[in-house]
Order: sequence, then C-alpha cells, then structure tokens
Amino acid sequence: MHFPPLHPSADGHRYELLSPTAMPRAAGFLWNRKMMIQVNCRGYAVAQFMQPEPAKYAYAPNLEARTFMQPEQGYYAHHPGRFFYVKDEETGELFSAPYEPVRAAPDRFVFSAGKSDMAWTVENLGIRIELAIGLPVDDVAELWSLKVTNLSGRPRRLSVYPYFTIGYMSWMNQSAEYRADLGGIVASSVTPYQKVADYFKQKNFKDRTFFLCERTPDAWEAAQEAFEGEGGLHAPSALREPSLAGGDARYETPVGAVQYRLALAAGGSEQYRFLFGPAFDDAEIAALRERYLSAAGFAAAREQYAAYIGAGAGCVMVETPDAEFDNFVNHWLPRQVYYHGGSNRLTTDPQTRNYLQDNMGMSFVHPPTARGAFLHALSQQEATGAMPDGILLVEGAELKYINQVPHTDHCVWLPVCLKAYLDETADWALLDEPVADSEGRSQTVAQRIGRAMDWLLEERDERGLSYIAQGDWCDPMNMVGYKGKGVSGWLTVAAAYALNLWAGMCAQHGDEEGARHFRAGAQALNDAANEHLWDGRWFARGITDDGVVFGVADDPEGRIWLNPQAWSMLSGAAGAEQRASMVREVEQQLHTPYGVQMFAPPFSKMREDVGRVTQKHPGSAENGAVYNHAAAFYIFSLYDGADGERAWDLMRKMIPGPDEADYLRRGQLPVFIPNYYRGAWREYPRTAGRSSHLFNTGTVSWIYRCVIEGLCGLVGDAGGLRIAPQLPAAWNGMKAVRTFRGATFEVAVRRGDVAEATVRCDGTLLPEARVTGIEAGRTYRLEVTVPAA
Amino acid sequence: MHFPPLHPSADGHRYELLSPTAMPRAAGFLWNRKMMIQVNCRGYAVAQFMQPEPAKYAYAPNLEARTFMQPEQGYYAHHPGRFFYVKDEETGELFSAPYEPVRAAPDRFVFSAGKSDMAWTVENLGIRIELAIGLPVDDVAELWSLKVTNLSGRPRRLSVYPYFTIGYMSWMNQSAEYRADLGGIVASSVTPYQKVADYFKQKNFKDRTFFLCERTPDAWEAAQEAFEGEGGLHAPSALREPSLAGGDARYETPVGAVQYRLALAAGGSEQYRFLFGPAFDDAEIAALRERYLSAAGFAAAREQYAAYIGAGAGCVMVETPDAEFDNFVNHWLPRQVYYHGGSNRLTTDPQTRNYLQDNMGMSFVHPPTARGAFLHALSQQEATGAMPDGILLVEGAELKYINQVPHTDHCVWLPVCLKAYLDETADWALLDEPVADSEGRSQTVAQRIGRAMDWLLEERDERGLSYIAQGDWCDPMNMVGYKGKGVSGWLTVAAAYALNLWAGMCAQHGDEEGARHFRAGAQALNDAANEHLWDGRWFARGITDDGVVFGVADDPEGRIWLNPQAWSMLSGAAGAEQRASMVREVEQQLHTPYGVQMFAPPFSKMREDVGRVTQKHPGSAENGAVYNHAAAFYIFSLYDGADGERAWDLMRKMIPGPDEADYLRRGQLPVFIPNYYRGAWREYPRTAGRSSHLFNTGTVSWIYRCVIEGLCGLVGDAGGLRIAPQLPAAWNGMKAVRTFRGATFEVAVRRGDVAEATVRCDGTLLPEARVTGIEAGRTYRLEVTVPAA
Repeated sequence: MHFPPLHPSADGHRYELLSPTAMPRAAGFLWNRKMMIQVNCRGYAVAQFMQPEPAKYAYAPNLEARTFMQPEQGYYAHHPGRFFYVKDEETGELFSAPYEPVRAAPDRFVFSAGKSDMAWTVENLGIRIELAIGLPVDDVAELWSLKVTNLSGRPRRLSVYPYFTIGYMSWMNQSAEYRADLGGIVASSVTPYQKVADYFKQKNFKDRTFFLCERTPDAWEAAQEAFEGEGGLHAPSALREPSLAGGDARYETPVGAVQYRLALAAGGSEQYRFLFGPAFDDAEIAALRERYLSAAGFAAAREQYAAYIGAGAGCVMVETPDAEFDNFVNHWLPRQVYYHGGSNRLTTDPQTRNYLQDNMGMSFVHPPTARGAFLHALSQQEATGAMPDGILLVEGAELKYINQVPHTDHCVWLPVCLKAYLDETADWALLDEPVADSEGRSQTVAQRIGRAMDWLLEERDERGLSYIAQGDWCDPMNMVGYKGKGVSGWLTVAAAYALNLWAGMCAQHGDEEGARHFRAGAQALNDAANEHLWDGRWFARGITDDGVVFGVADDPEGRIWLNPQAWSMLSGAAGAEQRASMVREVEQQLHTPYGVQMFAPPFSKMREDVGRVTQKHPGSAENGAVYNHAAAFYIFSLYDGADGERAWDLMRKMIPGPDEADYLRRGQLPVFIPNYYRGAWREYPRTAGRSSHLFNTGTVSWIYRCVIEGLCGLVGDAGGLRIAPQLPAAWNGMKAVRTFRGATFEVAVRRGDVAEATVRCDGTLLPEARVTGIEAGRTYRLEVTVPAA
Repeated sequence: MHFPPLHPSADGHRYELLSPTAMPRAAGFLWNRKMMIQVNCRGYAVAQFMQPEPAKYAYAPNLEARTFMQPEQGYYAHHPGRFFYVKDEETGELFSAPYEPVRAAPDRFVFSAGKSDMAWTVENLGIRIELAIGLPVDDVAELWSLKVTNLSGRPRRLSVYPYFTIGYMSWMNQSAEYRADLGGIVASSVTPYQKVADYFKQKNFKDRTFFLCERTPDAWEAAQEAFEGEGGLHAPSALREPSLAGGDARYETPVGAVQYRLALAAGGSEQYRFLFGPAFDDAEIAALRERYLSAAGFAAAREQYAAYIGAGAGCVMVETPDAEFDNFVNHWLPRQVYYHGGSNRLTTDPQTRNYLQDNMGMSFVHPPTARGAFLHALSQQEATGAMPDGILLVEGAELKYINQVPHTDHCVWLPVCLKAYLDETADWALLDEPVADSEGRSQTVAQRIGRAMDWLLEERDERGLSYIAQGDWCDPMNMVGYKGKGVSGWLTVAAAYALNLWAGMCAQHGDEEGARHFRAGAQALNDAANEHLWDGRWFARGITDDGVVFGVADDPEGRIWLNPQAWSMLSGAAGAEQRASMVREVEQQLHTPYGVQMFAPPFSKMREDVGRVTQKHPGSAENGAVYNHAAAFYIFSLYDGADGERAWDLMRKMIPGPDEADYLRRGQLPVFIPNYYRGAWREYPRTAGRSSHLFNTGTVSWIYRCVIEGLCGLVGDAGGLRIAPQLPAAWNGMKAVRTFRGATFEVAVRRGDVAEATVRCDGTLLPEARVTGIEAGRTYRLEVTVPAA
C-alpha cells in the first residue's frame, strides 16, 4: 500500500491532505462565538452567523430554503466558495487555488486543517500559492491571507484574482460596488420579507457583505455574470482581458473579485490579506477593517483565537500504540465537544436532549458552562415536570423544525448528563441551587429533576411502558405513538437508567426516600420491559398505537435496533444471559466494517406505524445508517459492562483511517466525527461507510466520555478518582495525562501478572484502584498494572 | 444596422432567435392544465406542476426555498436544464445543444419559440441537432424530440448524450436508476417533512421523476457526480470514456443521462423521442410511456395541444403598418391572456385583484371562464362585503405569502373587470345570478357587488379618503397605513371609478336608485381626492398614518406616481386642466425610452412611512420600475381620454423591438409582456429597460383591452358594437378582424376628409359609429374613415 494522501502534522495540530481529488468533499471547520465556517479542500465554503437566527453572508446562486444543517452537503459549480485565480500574463495560462473552479491539476497540493486555521499550499505553473483562513473570536469575519511565490527561477508577470462568491442575496434588493473609501467590494441587500412585523425583526440585520483588501487592487468586478461571461467559472471571460472591467452589480448577482498585477523576480513573493463577512453599515465595515486588516491585526486575532480554542483542550491526553487515535483524542475530539458546547450548533433553540448531552461533554472541557446550561434548561421545565422539546437561548427565540413535534424523552437526559458532570466535579451543591421557571416558581435542581423523573413514571401506559408520542431520541420515529397509545422500548429502559442514576444521586445527596422511590420506579420499568419487550434474543424497539410490537425477529425490515440493547444493559433490565444474546445478535446483524448500524435491515419503504424514519434513504441519516450517536451509546454500554474489547473495536471505527482505503471510503479528514456514516452495508455496499460530513452530533460527548471513563478508566466519584482502564487486547500499555478537579494525573498503564488492576500512586501501592483526597494543583504519578490480555 | 438576430416566422406563429449569446436569458414558455415550463434559448428550464400546490420534478442542486415566481431568474452552471451532448467518436470533440453546458460556438443556431412548442436547430462539427419540446394537454410531461443529421458529407461515428438534470430532490430520500422495464431512468424521492400531519398531505405526491427513452439507449448514468467527474459539466469526465458507466444514484444527486452510439452515413439522420416528468408510481410511468412515447403519441399530443392553444386565439386580428406589433397582438398577447386565465399563474390562491383582472382578459378569449370566475370569487365575499385577499381555487388551499397581508382594494376590481365582460358579452343576466357564500347566504351578483361598493364607501376616513391598511394594488406599500389611519390616493380615485362604473351598470340593469347612490358615492370620493390630494400639478399617492401627504412635489424620492394620475382621469376626479398638467408631468418625470415608470425618482433607502416598496432594488420590481401593469392602466386611461397618440407610444414600448438595440437591451423575445422592465432610467442607465422575464402580470388583460377597445376602438355596449379607432398619427390606416357576440367584423380603417369617424357597414353608411342588432354567425364588413392626422 502506498502512502495515503493524508497525514497528521508532527505536533498533531493539523491534518494534511495531499490531493484535491482523492477526497473531494474533505473539509475542516472553524467557529467562534458568533459564526461557523466549513471549508472543503477545494475551496467551497458554508458559513453561518447568528443574528440571532443563523444567517449567511455568502449565498447560493438561487434562493435557498432556510433549514437545519444538512448532511452530505452537495457541491456544484456555483456553490459558495473562496477562490484565487492565477493567470500567467505571458502565456495566458490559468489555474485556481485551492482547486475550484479551474480544476487544473496542481504540481503540489496541501490542504492543512488546523485546530485554529485552515491553510493550503498549491503549486502550479511554477508559482506557489499559500492560503490561510482564520477567525477572530468575537466578530463575524473571515481573515484570509494569500502569498504568491515565484518558484520558476525566472522573472514572471502574473495576475492574481481573489474571487469570493457572494451569491443571490435577496429578491428584494441586491447590489455591489467597489468602495475606494472602504478598500474593497461592498454588497448590499435587504433580507426579503412580506409582513410588516418582519420589518422590525430584520431592520438591524447585517445585510451587507464586504470583501476588503489590505492592498489596493489594480482592478475589480462586482457582478458575477460580467466576470464569468461565456467562459464559465472554470475559464472566466473577464480573465481574458488585461484588466477586470470595474463593473458594479445592480440587482445582479454580486461577487467580490479583484485583480492584482504582479511582476515577480525569481524567488520573489508578495503577500496579501483580505477580510470577508457581513456588516450592518459602512461604519461597522470601516471598524472591522481598522481592527483586523493588517499584519498586526491578523497576528493579534490569530493569538486570541488560538487562546480561545486552547481553552477547549479537554481533560485528557493519551499516548497509546495507535498514534492516529491519540491525535484525534488529544486534538480533535475535545475541540468538537467544545464546538458543541460553545456554539450550541448555531441554533437558538437546541433540542433539549442535544443541549443537555452537548453540555455533558462540556463537563470535561469547561464545567462552568455545563453547570450554567443545566440551570438554564431546568428554568424552562414545564409545570407538569416535563422538559420542553427545545431550550430557548435568546430573547425572542422560538421552537422550530423538529422542536414543534412532541417527543417524550427529554427528561431522561437530566440525570444521565448530570451524572457525568457530578462525577467530574463533585459539585453536589448544584442540587440545592434554586431554579425559577417562567412562571416564577422556584424549586431546587434536585426537586426539579425529581419531578422530571416522576413525569417519566407518569407518562406510561397500563403495562408500565413509556409513551413515545411523536418521537423519542429517534426524531423521525414519529408515527409509532402519535395516536397516544404507542410506547417506546428504548425510552422505557432509558427512563429506568435515568431513574437508577437519579436514585444513586439522591442517596449520595442524603435523600434515601427519594432513592428508594426512584429505584423502585426503575425496577418497575425494567420489569415491564422484560415482560412486554423481550423478543427472545433481543429487546424490541416499541409497540405501536395498534399494539404491534416492532423491532422483533419477525420484522423483515427494522428487525433489531441498537438503542434498546444498549440502554437495557445500562438500566439493568438485561441479565447476563440476555446481555450475551443481545451482543451476539448486534454483532451478527448490525456490525459493519465501518461501525455499528442503528438498526437493520434498513427500511426500503414506508411503514406507516413506525413513521418518517422508514421513508429516509436506506443507509443515510437514521434509516439503517452507522448512526454514530446510537453507536456511542452502545460503546458506552459496553464499557459500562466491562466489555472494553468490543467497545474499542467500534469506537476505533468511528475515526476514519488509518489506512488509505478507509480514508477514501469515508471521504473525510479525521478532524471530527460525523453524525453518521452510510450504512445499509449489505443492501448498498457501494456507498456504505461514506461520511455525512455533518459535525453536529451528540456522539462526541459520549465518545469523549468513553475515552476518559472507559478506555482510560479514569472516572470521578464523590470522593475521588477511580482507575479501571480497559485496554484492547492488542495493547501492552498506554499513557494518559488527566486533569481532574484541579490536579494532574500522569498515568502509565501496563500489563502485568495481576488478577485485577493495581495502582501505585507516586510509587505507593493504593489499597484500591482509587485516589482520594485529591489536592488541586498537585501532580500525581499513577502506575497502573492491568491483567495480561 | 445589421439584421437583428431575431425575427418572426412567416406565419407569425414562431419567433426565431439566431444566437445563443446575444440574449442569453431569452426564453419561451408552454403550459397546460397542470403545469408550466419556461425554457431559455440555451437549454435552462424552470418547470412547475400543481399537486395542487406548485411542485417540481427537476430541482436545483441545493434545497431551494418555496416561493412565488421570481423575476429575473438567475442561471448558473448547475441550474436545471435539458441538454444534449454530442461527441465525435473519432476526434473526441464535443458540443452540446442547445448551447449549455459546453457553450461551444455553433455554426448555426436557431431557437424558435412557437405558440405550442419550442424548437432548436444547432449545427456544429458538421452535425445538425434538431430539438423540440411539446406538452400534452392533461398530463404533466415534457415531450422531447431529437433529430441528429450528418451534414459533413462523410460517414461519422458519434455518441449523443441526452442529459436531463433532476437535481437535489430531497434531504430525506433520493435515488435513481435505469429501469429496463420502463425504458429509462427513474428517480425516486420523498418530499421532506417533519410533522405527522404533513405525511398525509404528501403521501400521494408524485415523488418520482422519469426520463424515458423511446429507443433503448446504449448506456446510461443516473448519478450527476459520476457523470460530471472532475471534468465539470462543460467537459464531463464520463464523456471521455467509450461508454457511460451505468451507475445508479443512492442519496446522490440524480440525473437522467443516456448514451446513443451512432454511425451516420453522409446525409444520414436518426430520430429519438423522450418523455420527462413526475409520477406517483411505476404504473403511472408505464401508462404515460404507452400514451405518448411514440411517433403516433407525439403526433396526437401535438394536435391536441395545438387545439388547446388554438382555443385561446382571442377575438381580434389586426393588420397595421407595424408588422411586429401585429404579430404580437395576433399570436402572443391573447396567448398570454389565455395562459393567465387558464393557469391562474400556477397558484391555488391567486390574489383577488389578479384573479379578477386575469378573468377580465378571459372575457375576450373565453367568456364562460370569466363568468365562472366572477361567480367563484363572489362566493368568497366576506359578510362585511369585503373581498378576501386571495381566492381559494381548490379544497384545502390556503392564503399564502402576500395574501396574508391585508389589502383594501380588492372590491374595486369587481365592477372594473365586470364592465369589460358585460361590454363583450351583454350577459346582463349574470347580475341576477344567485351566489351562496361559505356560510350559505345567497345573494345575487348585483347585490353582492353593491355590498362590495358600500364596503369601499365605509372604509374611508373622516376626510372621505380610502384606508390603505397594509397595501392597495401596490403590494409592498405596506407601511403607509398599517396603524389604521393612512389612506391611499390611488384607491380613493379607483373606488370612485369602480362606483361610477357600477352606477352605470345599475342604471343599465334598471336600478336607478342604486345608480344614484353609487354615483353620489363616486362624486364624494372624487371631491375628497381633489380636496386633500391634488398637489398642484398632480395627485398625491396617499397620506400616511402620521398625516404626511406623499407622492408630492416636495418628495425627493417617490415624488410622482402613475396610478393616481391614471385613475383620476378614469374616475372623473381630474378636470381637463388637471389632466393636461398630469400628462405633462408624467411625460417629463416618468417617461423613459423603455416605457413609463410607475413612479420616480426611485427610493434609494427605506422610508418607514411608505414601506417595503422603498426597500426594493431601485429600478426593479415596484421601486421605480417600468412596471407594466401600472403602465397599462395609464395607457388605458389615455385611450379612455381619447389620447390615442400617447397611448400608442407607451403601448408600443411594452413590446421589445423592433430594432436590434432594443431587443438586446430588453434581452427578451417578444412572445410575452414581462411584469416589468428595469426602470431607474436616470439613476441606473446601464440596466434600464431589461426585462424581468416574468410573464405573470396583470398587464396583459389591460393591453389586450387597450388594443381592442382603444386602438381598434371596437367596444361593445348593451345593444351593439361601437366603432372609434384611435390610430397613431403616423398610420394611414389599419385592418382588424373582430369576433364579437358570435359575429365577425372585418374592419378596414383609413384616413379621410371627415371631422369624426364614419362607418359603412357592408357598404351602407351608418347613422352613428355603432352596429346594432348583431346577428351571430354573420360577417360584417366595416369601412371606417377617421380624420386625417
């Protein structure tokens, strides 16, 4: 096998792709407190900012629907992008960096996705183009740098044309022109609307898009059509002329295109900087230019942004026999967790389950954020004890999209996520915090969670199974119980798990009566699941409004679902034999070379008593995909059940690579975990394993937790840190540096002749595999010996 | 000046464009009872069908917003289109017909927009490609024919690849594959939704798109990306291979691409037929194939469709010194009127004013349709007498978009449009028809219109001026009166005109008391307009909620508006001196080389007491555009005031041409009148005059009426046909054939030494210029003499 076209940089902070065509959709992403941008290796980009709802400043060529972020984003010639055309003025030859739209084969290509920037090096026609994009921390702006170097050993005359698409801004009003006073092209629009009330909502929108140039360009063009002409974007007519025409756009599609004419000596180079983003008015544009568009401004922004990202570095660094895994865990996984916790997925109404799980992850990265989020979520608890479908984050936000469809699982996530936070922080005082709801009623966190648990106990049918309404965790399973009778097998055991966890927290918190009450509730749920949902070899997924049990051996499609198995192991519903049977069936029916499918076989057609999930494309999204969030639950349940070998196998499959064939099939850099890989491995082998390229996913909090608590086995409790690593059989050892409650633990794990794990702390053998009395600021050296494989 | 790249065919039934680049957006359109398609000369297409809301079967490459039809439709490389690649198998050379996506300069190019088809002849590389598209009358399907002819005088080996884009169908589910059993590529999708209720609304949607081939292709490809590869749409990678790969699309962008390998002798040719459209299931696809996909099927459909279009031929044929005008009036104008009346602009809730005016036009094309529409509209009258903002056409339809914004003008259109119908038909019995509303109350047409007129009289302020609420005819003038106080100057005089017309109809119908009542109401409105809105040289546009009169000499923007001038002339509010002053001011301030602007100067920024119109792009849509609907009112008012010279000048400017410079500036074939040409002629001269390319417009009913009643002066009354042509000064005469109440009038107009028009009917001088006692079935020969210019 030849060297794959992808490798990590020496420090692990970057991933480098050496071909623009091997993985054409491979992309990195950056975000800050107000925006997000995903740029693929070829120059296509998707950017959003919050005002406060997600908005764009570089648009598609047509009027796009406003929707939630989609998987498997499609690219096409006029997709929004940031391109740099280069023309040899002597020969007229043309290429573009990074790669689109000319698609000229480069002599050298590096796309380098960094933790706090993305950069390209492209060489063609004896010219090197170096590009980089960074973001500031608190403004919505892209900071682009361009360096042009003459590698050809002879003097060269070039024109370089940065070409930033702006697209179809609005059917009401759009224009663009070069503004000498601001030093760039400024496009203006009016966000379309028809109702008077919307005017007032939108009048302060940032309806301008600026493309500012640090150095005054020699020429420019502000209208897309005039630039492209009959040549097409791959060979624009305007580039056949000596100079761009200096046109404006008047209700024509705006573009930010400028021209620099260069005469480069052999080895000579020139450097340029650009600023691209939205603004409300000229004054804001001028201020942004002043703040950023200089060497010093870029350097300061880079430093501040690196510090911002650095603050999300997480709580563990590992050193294992799997270097690419280490690289992912040490650099990229906590970054993705931090992205979720910091951006709330660029929505103002995150689904309650997502919001809580994303903040479960933040427990490991920045616990105060998690704490605030739990309090904020509970302040929106309903009078019944139910949690709403989404958590509103800003004044005026509304429940949108899927949050208008009633789901019954949101309460479950309170104790499930809180458990991780308390284990990490021992911040038990949180349970006594008073939380006022929208009607001014104040109750403590403990009281509110207790009521949420009682709500789960109430929302059950006569058999003791949990109603599903129009969905549980699986959003599009919307017709199982929409008539009010259907129940969820997963939710029944998930509620049992939540109640058991909460009972434990009650006991820890001194509420023995609560502990007994909720433990009894959990038992009742588990008993009901066993009575009505055990199908002989695995747990069923639920029972429909019409009393049909589904997710069972007799079902030709949707026969076995991952979630009821994972959570029945967590909840205690499954005994040892059941567990063994379930794991065997999951392995036989759901494992694929690219991870574990959420269910199988995928639905090929609508099943009206299950719902929309059965209409999704087989293998994509929820319909039989390797849906990583469900896979993460299962992996967590395996670690929870001490089956570290299986857990590792499935967890490792979530990270693309390490071999070239796997990278190419996934089509993704290992800088994030996507929400799914295509499943339907048996039915559609051609596409199985492909990445969705969508990095919004509840997966990452769980995988980070699995690494910390499962693989490394470094999990807190009320009084200390327990140590129980679960190494894959092939490993002889690993190292980890764990920050925990202000202390640092340098952990070395090796195999030895022991029956169970033993731990030496700073040379002293501990009586049990647990460190207590932890002192903040201190560094502990732990030598852990685990049994031979 | 050289010959323009555009000319009508000898029979006038086609318009031919001889260059794909001279007017790149030039397009024709076809429609039937269930669909509409606009195809431009280069092969891009926009098609919609009703299920019952407008839907697509060929989609954009991304998730497009659902919206009303937009002007100035933007094209881009991956815009939906129907393309035919041709590859020379010996040299590898490539071109595509009609022109996109390869954009190879053809040796010969003809785009021929016909009344019932569109066709192309493209010659390149010694090969002639002849394309044509037609529609059936009652099914949603495109019937495409392709003929390939070898002109090169030597044997040739070719591959021809019809390439029909299908696009991004759905984020839920999309796929495509070649279906040997159906003989083509079938793409499947699920229209996306999240709420259970939408499932039931959508479950019978036609979510499949078929591309069927009469002759079995040699190869095919169903995935867009696989076809395009790294080559780009202009040079697809798949075409470098000997054979398309036969791939399917699995949650990949579907396409209908097939390959035929041809060996053509010198002069040899091959013929192909294709069927493209949406279907619910395989059975429907098979049935459509059976019905249409053959020489006989195409021929039958062509014949039926020509008959369908022929039924909309209108009621007048003219022969004037202006051949292109004749061609437009005889072939295209009634066709566009018929399109509006037959399709209701592909909406299920047409705006009430549009619905009534479109059916005013149908009075001249198919009076029973107009009659039914008046009755249907009145059945939705509200209890107050008000008319709703939109008329619901099908069960389950809802008021959408602009129809959710309250406007106050809808009642006006009842007598205004009915007048044309009654003049045309003398169907006075209509006034006695009972109409039941949604609550079962039955009233006659006359009673209902009377109540609508009284509603107009009630909805006035203390000054006697008409409230505007959130808009009158000018939709986006939404903030003049949204607080409940602002009034519309136009609506005040429009209501007066409506009341006067209705008073006349009451009198004719024997209701003298009603006539007096409504005439007095009209007088009160006219008086109020004169007292409060006459600005010295013209009528103001209105008075805002805060009492600010606008559309007046002191306004730097929006100073003079066309509508109050036109309708004050119609209503009688304007005396002779006022009229002369207004016409002079309109000429000075609003006339442009491309028509008369709706107002001037255009707004450059938001004026919060006027509203959204001031935020629209200056010169586009309503903001200072040559908005043809308003221009048509003005032209009508000029004819009504016997100012035929000015009326002709402005009416002629609505039809592009006849010189090349004008065609190129408009960018449009003269096969329809667009809703606007770009205005802001003084502010943005570069773009002024450009066509919107949107053929949905209330303009055409009025212009057809102007031609018939104004230019030809052939207007009915209760007892006959009056004759009062208004020839432009430059004309010595004209001819017209007018069908009227079942009779045919062959009219020859010439200038002569007369003081006023004289008419000979079948050789006999009539005592007045009026034919009475008209006998259906008879042909009358009228010789009309009008005074010398």
